[in-house]
Amino acid sequence: MHRFNANQLTIIGTGLLGGSVALALRQAGFTGKIVGVGRRQETLDTAIGVGCIDTGTTDLAAGVAEADVVLIATPVQTITHVLRDLAGCVGEATIVTDVGSTKRDIVATAEDVLPHAGRFVGSHPMAGNTGAGPEAADAQLLAGKPCIVTPTKRTDAEALATVEAMWRTLAMNLLTMNPAEHDLQTALVSHLPHAAAVMLVLTAAAEGGWDVASTGFKSTTRLASSNPPMRADIMINNRAALLDAIGAFEKQLADLRGKLESEDYDGVLDMLNRAKDIRDAWVEVRFANEEES
Amino acid sequence: MHRFNANQLTIIGTGLLGGSVALALRQAGFTGKIVGVGRRQETLDTAIGVGCIDTGTTDLAAGVAEADVVLIATPVQTITHVLRDLAGCVGEATIVTDVGSTKRDIVATAEDVLPHAGRFVGSHPMAGNTGAGPEAADAQLLAGKPCIVTPTKRTDAEALATVEAMWRTLAMNLLTMNPAEHDLQTALVSHLPHAAAVMLVLTAAAEGGWDVASTGFKSTTRLASSNPPMRADIMINNRAALLDAIGAFEKQLADLRGKLESEDYDGVLDMLNRAKDIRDAWVEVRFANEEES
Repeated sequence: MHRFNANQLTIIGTGLLGGSVALALRQAGFTGKIVGVGRRQETLDTAIGVGCIDTGTTDLAAGVAEADVVLIATPVQTITHVLRDLAGCVGEATIVTDVGSTKRDIVATAEDVLPHAGRFVGSHPMAGNTGAGPEAADAQLLAGKPCIVTPTKRTDAEALATVEAMWRTLAMNLLTMNPAEHDLQTALVSHLPHAAAVMLVLTAAAEGGWDVASTGFKSTTRLASSNPPMRADIMINNRAALLDAIGAFEKQLADLRGKLESEDYDGVLDMLNRAKDIRDAWVEVRFANEEES
Repeated sequence: MHRFNANQLTIIGTGLLGGSVALALRQAGFTGKIVGVGRRQETLDTAIGVGCIDTGTTDLAAGVAEADVVLIATPVQTITHVLRDLAGCVGEATIVTDVGSTKRDIVATAEDVLPHAGRFVGSHPMAGNTGAGPEAADAQLLAGKPCIVTPTKRTDAEALATVEAMWRTLAMNLLTMNPAEHDLQTALVSHLPHAAAVMLVLTAAAEGGWDVASTGFKSTTRLASSNPPMRADIMINNRAALLDAIGAFEKQLADLRGKLESEDYDGVLDMLNRAKDIRDAWVEVRFANEEES
């Protein structure tokens, strides 16, 4: 396995995710310099204080000038803006990656504006989001979680190998897909379920039913309690794929509606059996060593 | 508080739920006779063996002849059939209740066919369904859980007080609503979320996305792994209310679709904020002493 190595890694955005990457790299023995770039010196000072970064600057050009690798770890809706700013100051050889939870727009923008399209590799480390800021950074946040990388035909092999090595060093489980696949798959299993949770809550709120709601409702709607501004950003950013996922969901809804209207017990049972078989098989493989919660 | 008392309670269907009621009543000090009625002597013998019932019979008329209270604890789709059978043999003074998870059809049938409509009180103890049969019966299954009773204008006060006393003796939290309200509320917070979980799994199965699915998808789809024949029965039985709930959900879906199509970030954020506020407030009250899982 290619081992992650660099004289300097620059992390733009030293919040929960960027800070956690830095801490985990240090814990894994990374010896290069880690530079933070942020909008507020206070946040950078905190990040230095908790050991996430060696130095910090609010000057993007200064922060990336000597970087071998740049990681953009800002909120998803700002990543394309950061890429445009970066375009004017990043070196041609510098490898650039990101942590954005949508990929089509980000990868297209990166390949369009950066001096060397081949040096950009889209990444999406899928780690939970509790807490915020460098003070919440956690070296264990990413270990064992999936990380999707989205190379294209233009991505060069060395850049891809370096970025993959970085995520592997953090013990993440790497998956590779193209940016459009990434956006549809995450829409199907993350953004659509989140939307469904929100809509179930709003439906119950409009029509009543709270007195009898219990643990089943609580599990099904858990995602509705996650960070609204962050999730709204992701939904708007990934709206094309989310609308496709909603279209596919509406087909299932029409199917169920028809079966209920015609009192088709066997048809309803068939849907429920298929769903249970598929989910149980997935849970068994995906959470092999965990209890169902 | 009116204390539950009876010379004889007859439980029709001594499976998980019927058996658990019997065990919990004994544990709470109920001293009357508990008679089980079932289709198979073997199940009745098991129920006697684990201490759920004193005697058991496959003869419905014999089982209910001396009963002060009859509890119908068979699967939901058979309850109306049991009521029709019971109509020919139950005493006019005998109080009858059930455990069915839909109420409109059951209550209407009971009031139509029983010799004394006022002696029927619809009940829905909302307890989890893991395991089956009297061997899975658990005196703690019902304690602390909601139980909905659905009296109508025809229900007599003594019958209602007796049935309420029985559930209170089992430490259940009583709620009262009319049968139609019950069916809509359970459709909104139980059957619709279950349907959504099933549809999310089938959508992902049709379109892909399993590689990136994680704990959020697991929570949202948890209900899809519950007992398909039982849940299909409930959905078909409660189809009128479930179709109403689906209609209300489709309005939310159309609302979200419109906001995504018009790139209305503020509108999406507003939906997400409302859902989070409503759910967080509900979780705080409903699960005051529990960790979010």
